[in-house]
Amino acid sequence: MTTPKYVYVYANGHAEGRGDQKELLGGKGAGLAEMTNLGIPVPAGFTLTTEVCTYFNEHNKEYPPGLWEEVLDAMRQTEEAMGHRFGDPADPLLVSVRSGARVSMPGMMDTVLNLGLNDETVQGLIAKSGNERFGYDAYRRFITMYGDVVLGVPHSAFEEILDAKKEEVGVTLDTELSADDLKSLIAPYKALVLERTGKPFPEDPMEQLRGGINAVFDSWNVPRAITYRKLNNIPDHWGTAVNVVSMVYGNRGESSGTGVAFTRDPATGERIFFGEYLVDAQGEDVVAGIRTPLPIAELERQMPEIYRELVEIYQRLEAHYKDMQDMEFTVEEGKLYMLQTRTGKRTAQAAVRIAVEMVGEGLIDEATAVSRVEPAQLDQLLHPRIDTDQPVEVIAQGLPASPGAAVGEVVFTAESAIEEVAKGRQVILVRAETSPDDVGGMHVAEGILTARGGMTSHAAVVARGMGKCCVAGCSAITVDAEARQITVGDRVVREFDTLSLNGSTGEVILGAAKLIVPELSGDFNTLMGWADKIRTLKVRTNADTPEDAANAVAFGAEGIGLCRTEHMFFGEERLPVVQEMILAEDEAARRAALAKLLPFQRDDFLGLFRAMDGRPVTIRLLDPPLHEFLPSREGLIEEVATLRANGNNDGTLAEREALLAKVNHLHELNPMLGHRGCRLGISYPEIYEMQAEAIALAAATLAKEGKQIVPEIMVPLVGTVAEFRYLKERIVKVVEAVKARESVALDYLIGTMIEIPRAALTADRIAEEAQFFSCGTNDLTQMTFGYSRDDAGVFLPDYVEKKILPVDPFQVLDRDGVGQLVRMAVEKGRATRPELKVGICGEHGGEPSSIEFCHQVGLDYVSCSPFRVPIARLAAAQAVLADRG
Amino acid sequence: MTTPKYVYVYANGHAEGRGDQKELLGGKGAGLAEMTNLGIPVPAGFTLTTEVCTYFNEHNKEYPPGLWEEVLDAMRQTEEAMGHRFGDPADPLLVSVRSGARVSMPGMMDTVLNLGLNDETVQGLIAKSGNERFGYDAYRRFITMYGDVVLGVPHSAFEEILDAKKEEVGVTLDTELSADDLKSLIAPYKALVLERTGKPFPEDPMEQLRGGINAVFDSWNVPRAITYRKLNNIPDHWGTAVNVVSMVYGNRGESSGTGVAFTRDPATGERIFFGEYLVDAQGEDVVAGIRTPLPIAELERQMPEIYRELVEIYQRLEAHYKDMQDMEFTVEEGKLYMLQTRTGKRTAQAAVRIAVEMVGEGLIDEATAVSRVEPAQLDQLLHPRIDTDQPVEVIAQGLPASPGAAVGEVVFTAESAIEEVAKGRQVILVRAETSPDDVGGMHVAEGILTARGGMTSHAAVVARGMGKCCVAGCSAITVDAEARQITVGDRVVREFDTLSLNGSTGEVILGAAKLIVPELSGDFNTLMGWADKIRTLKVRTNADTPEDAANAVAFGAEGIGLCRTEHMFFGEERLPVVQEMILAEDEAARRAALAKLLPFQRDDFLGLFRAMDGRPVTIRLLDPPLHEFLPSREGLIEEVATLRANGNNDGTLAEREALLAKVNHLHELNPMLGHRGCRLGISYPEIYEMQAEAIALAAATLAKEGKQIVPEIMVPLVGTVAEFRYLKERIVKVVEAVKARESVALDYLIGTMIEIPRAALTADRIAEEAQFFSCGTNDLTQMTFGYSRDDAGVFLPDYVEKKILPVDPFQVLDRDGVGQLVRMAVEKGRATRPELKVGICGEHGGEPSSIEFCHQVGLDYVSCSPFRVPIARLAAAQAVLADRG
Repeated sequence: MTTPKYVYVYANGHAEGRGDQKELLGGKGAGLAEMTNLGIPVPAGFTLTTEVCTYFNEHNKEYPPGLWEEVLDAMRQTEEAMGHRFGDPADPLLVSVRSGARVSMPGMMDTVLNLGLNDETVQGLIAKSGNERFGYDAYRRFITMYGDVVLGVPHSAFEEILDAKKEEVGVTLDTELSADDLKSLIAPYKALVLERTGKPFPEDPMEQLRGGINAVFDSWNVPRAITYRKLNNIPDHWGTAVNVVSMVYGNRGESSGTGVAFTRDPATGERIFFGEYLVDAQGEDVVAGIRTPLPIAELERQMPEIYRELVEIYQRLEAHYKDMQDMEFTVEEGKLYMLQTRTGKRTAQAAVRIAVEMVGEGLIDEATAVSRVEPAQLDQLLHPRIDTDQPVEVIAQGLPASPGAAVGEVVFTAESAIEEVAKGRQVILVRAETSPDDVGGMHVAEGILTARGGMTSHAAVVARGMGKCCVAGCSAITVDAEARQITVGDRVVREFDTLSLNGSTGEVILGAAKLIVPELSGDFNTLMGWADKIRTLKVRTNADTPEDAANAVAFGAEGIGLCRTEHMFFGEERLPVVQEMILAEDEAARRAALAKLLPFQRDDFLGLFRAMDGRPVTIRLLDPPLHEFLPSREGLIEEVATLRANGNNDGTLAEREALLAKVNHLHELNPMLGHRGCRLGISYPEIYEMQAEAIALAAATLAKEGKQIVPEIMVPLVGTVAEFRYLKERIVKVVEAVKARESVALDYLIGTMIEIPRAALTADRIAEEAQFFSCGTNDLTQMTFGYSRDDAGVFLPDYVEKKILPVDPFQVLDRDGVGQLVRMAVEKGRATRPELKVGICGEHGGEPSSIEFCHQVGLDYVSCSPFRVPIARLAAAQAVLADRG
Repeated sequence: MTTPKYVYVYANGHAEGRGDQKELLGGKGAGLAEMTNLGIPVPAGFTLTTEVCTYFNEHNKEYPPGLWEEVLDAMRQTEEAMGHRFGDPADPLLVSVRSGARVSMPGMMDTVLNLGLNDETVQGLIAKSGNERFGYDAYRRFITMYGDVVLGVPHSAFEEILDAKKEEVGVTLDTELSADDLKSLIAPYKALVLERTGKPFPEDPMEQLRGGINAVFDSWNVPRAITYRKLNNIPDHWGTAVNVVSMVYGNRGESSGTGVAFTRDPATGERIFFGEYLVDAQGEDVVAGIRTPLPIAELERQMPEIYRELVEIYQRLEAHYKDMQDMEFTVEEGKLYMLQTRTGKRTAQAAVRIAVEMVGEGLIDEATAVSRVEPAQLDQLLHPRIDTDQPVEVIAQGLPASPGAAVGEVVFTAESAIEEVAKGRQVILVRAETSPDDVGGMHVAEGILTARGGMTSHAAVVARGMGKCCVAGCSAITVDAEARQITVGDRVVREFDTLSLNGSTGEVILGAAKLIVPELSGDFNTLMGWADKIRTLKVRTNADTPEDAANAVAFGAEGIGLCRTEHMFFGEERLPVVQEMILAEDEAARRAALAKLLPFQRDDFLGLFRAMDGRPVTIRLLDPPLHEFLPSREGLIEEVATLRANGNNDGTLAEREALLAKVNHLHELNPMLGHRGCRLGISYPEIYEMQAEAIALAAATLAKEGKQIVPEIMVPLVGTVAEFRYLKERIVKVVEAVKARESVALDYLIGTMIEIPRAALTADRIAEEAQFFSCGTNDLTQMTFGYSRDDAGVFLPDYVEKKILPVDPFQVLDRDGVGQLVRMAVEKGRATRPELKVGICGEHGGEPSSIEFCHQVGLDYVSCSPFRVPIARLAAAQAVLADRG
């Protein structure tokens, strides 16, 4: 039995780990190892693997036996590489302890810097750096951070002591404090720790290290990290690695600095060296957005050699990883260190451009390019932007931190964002700056506006990751969260006032700006073309109007997978006729009303057929229960009671009572499971006959113009083959009669929805008659789980919160349950009718993970809303690539 | 290739067919063949098989090639056996053409008698019989019947001519007409046929035969036959055979007669020769109930030799068939002919007694006895009877035609019976006599009362088959259907007045008699004991109260499979506390209300446990949505609107508005798919915790008394293993705490309902945690079909009517769909946990066909309402016997 290796060292141009070991070493650890092996300057250090985290969580916060010996050995190698010793009073090596999960979780977990400092070693640091202020600044920062993160003494308690000191010496900024001022903080800081924890602040560097490592592993399970994982579908069991890295300092004066850079512009995708840096600053200062940094181009002027070295490194890193990199670097007294490299987050626009251009550059192939863009992210490109041709009142200008547009009512805290959105409002979250605690609020907001912070600030990075519009660093505004208002010059914007954000320009606009549908770039179409070459699933759209249909065709829809005819019944001229039909006392009266609807329906279908220009069109016959077309029962009850109490006798009461009686008659306790779909068609065959006739007439009109259309007539809510057979016979009769009467040849298919569990269970029988299936996964999810979509809002969020469900099954197809039925429908259906066409037309048809499943089970097509068609095209291609492994 | 044989002859003591060929020859044909082979005197004849019917229906009323040649050949053999020739003017053979399906469908299809008569052969008949009146009576009856059945000339048109003749000669009864009078009818009858059909009445006997055969095959598809098949679950494709039988005449004077007999009493099962006959009458006269016949015992006096021969034959037949036989016979001028024998219909009481006594007689074995009683029929024995100790006002006395008791409102037509029952009324159908057209109305009525007809009249036979109470031949009453009233002496009973019937005594009682639970006979218990030895399925009961539980134990229940705890929440003292719990603003207030409910619940369970005396008890935790415990929303809306309109300001309005707000908050669009079952348990774990504590406390109390009970705690509406795990953890914690606190050892199981399709689909996962499954097939049927049980009444009857569904799936388990999920639950559940106990607790648990399915898929038990426990025991045994083949 071999003992597992828990600690991986990188030092002296050699690393024990590799870049492809992200699962074991985390993203940061793998990146540091890989960079070390590439000969790129990295501060030496070592990584405790994610397996340690798992062990730690599963063993009541115990470590695996032998771990500490491995840490000590790794520390010896690190000391050797860096030429200092940890805890050496004369020339101490200082280290940071940082989290590093498989995928980046920016700012979610803890970090401690400057471990190894104590009353003795701080003297060595001062001696070696020749900078007493730097030494004490590092020391007091260390006590604050360690005290907060490891010992649980709130940051604010240290800040109080600091503020008192500033007041005492009469300064306002930390930087105005002298070395002596900073030195004088050490004793009260330590006293604070002793008072709050009952123990003295640990002087022993090894004890500090142990405490730091503990704290970082612990931080895997802080609430904000758990929330982030939930939002990003990161499994809890992955765990984080911990990196112990030699400290290097960007705050050792004018020849030092620190920065963040991307190998391409993460917002636009342009192939430029992009980044920001601060001179004489620690890395955290850039990310936290407290000081506004300089663009990386300035570095060429300020530190030309460093800039050249950095450019050479970034080019090597991108060429090595063949993807856009997000790097952190520090310059310590003229020496460059790379602290991290990882695949850079990017906007959808950038993702598309980078992927396409990298193919042009020969860096990657088309399939890789297709796999590089998150389908869900495309939403950003496909949703409306601000119409710049319309006059808008721009009240401030910030940084275009995450593109897109947002209109909403202003709120000032993450909590109120969540509350108001729950009430149905759309909100803009406005913060001076955001912190990881704001992530939940950012998630529900339409857009985020911050007064401080740069393009790589927390708000900007997180918003881009979410594909959410963000204007950051808008220093023209003053945010008063307490008073719930923003001041811009002499203008005041209050809570719930409406603002619009243009994340692509950084403009902050008063009121609701007009939004327009975006044009898609050439790169976008190129990428979609590649996706189309790869995918095998067809992509159709759910569209009820010629306008929607045309939109969807522009987005690449290859047909209509679901046209809901009931939407056509609600038109102003039609609803009275529909009500006449419902209130009819007998079949003759019903047929008379339906005859009036026929020309409307025929023209509806003709418009759709023309818009689709020969592409297949699936038309679902009337589905909802009839009471949906009548006034609400509750309203009538109230009205009748009021009329009665008021002694009405002008006939209104009698008329409303009669209507209420009919509505009561049609009332259902569970309309979802009631008299709807094909059940209506069977009770009143004349309704479906009218619709079938309208479809046939529209197709006949086109046929006479020499145009081909093969309508697919779809019967909803079928649960038994007998239902389908009963209706199919009648539909065929009507269509054949139209063909004969109009003397045209027409091809058509008659198929069914698979949306009742029993339809999936007996799909072999249903396929004896049905010529196609379309899986209605909305209803199928309702019935398979027994969740009413209209009512489940009461408990579903709680279910996801309590991890009873991993995600909302109405958003992401439940593979274990609903998916099992979909698979059954496909397999049983094709066992009877091998050529059976099977598609999906629920909301899941536009959701990437669900589309992957549809590909896996062998569906012919997915159908989704027009705006999601490109997402589906891309997801379908990625499903093929995932299959290839 | 061998040509199929379509015609089977029986003649001269030899038959080509056999008694076990009912599928091919129909019941009547197989019986005639078998009797012939047994050497019993049967008029010679032949049978056209059911395959001819199938061919006829599938080939647009064409016959298979070669059929007619077979018929002619069979006719030749028949002529030979009977010693006359068909169409012989000197001595004609006459025949009847009769239907005969696999199972008896009494009176549903057509029959034609006396084929072979024409103007010439009638003279031969007269010459041979020496009875001119008989000859012309036969001839005019033949023209009427053939005209009606085959040629479609209504019976009433012939009756008009007959009535005119009676008026002309001044008589009132047919029997008063002379031979000449009857002879004089022939010409106008034929003229009528010519006028109505445009063709002369067929004189050619062979043409008559062909027409008769056609008409009988056609009558398989007349509406009343279709209705009867639907009610009795007889497949349409079975078809009928057609029997061509030599005519023999019971109406050739005082040495002739006709009758119907049973080998045992079909009402009580007593081993006596039972039957009725009429002297000088045709067979149809007995069945139609027009003349009231004599008991068979009279025959011994009137025709002692015939009686002895008949007794010898009935004993042979019963010994041969080893079951009670229902026979028809005719005596023609002193010669006995058996016309039919078949297994006799009987009441449940008779079925039990006959089965048990036949075992005692060594005729059959116990297993056969068990298979001889229809489980569903037991309902008759298990439902209340009239309490004879209470004074009742008997207004008339009829024949005790079908036992049991019925209370209902009087209606006079089958249509109004159906209408009123649809409105929720219970009705007694009163008719002068019933005809096959009344079957639909009889089916829905509580009981049937007729003024005419004997124990073997249509009403009596059909009612016994249905297990429906019937008093027949109650000649004291006069039924005026037109005026919608009954007259009994000077008393008038009007439509919708309440009557009670005692089908066991024949009493007709004014008003609603008191009904009592019947005692079960010793035979019943003997039979149940045999069933218990055979069956492998356990039988439990659904019971919520100690009374129900005790009842069920008396009926043989082996445990409680479903105790619905919500019923316990509706008690007068409890509902206010339940409402307090629901309206609580926070968990603390909810817990306070629940604490008040705890002692009630504990005592509920203690009572149940004591009643079950150590048998297993499955308790389902709270299932319905909370709004079921609050006032109705519609009522509140109305009340609030009225209070508002009236300007209420005494605080009532505000209070009702507040309640309405809460009710609105809890309102659901589809409560069936809403916040109920374990979803409530997860939202408010304190509810299930209280219930678990109450169960544990009750069990602990018993344990301290030294009594063992293993409560089975059942979580409803589980769809994912995570739901179950979440609740199981909490329940275990509560029960373990009680065990520790009370210092008792307790065994208990925690399991789940399988009633959500997803639970069945993921049963392998759920069984990782659940210790038992109970299939809730009510909800599972709702969700698998997508039918709300509360709403499906609008379309389900139509579905069954249109044959889209064979039966109501809420009554009979749908094996193809719902059954597939049940099977999946069993197989997947046991794959994970081989010892998993699986039961069923939906309504299907008491329905014989569903129980057979439960046995087939390997369930451990079924659970049903107390009164259905014996049905389930018997059905479970029969399932084993069916398995053995």
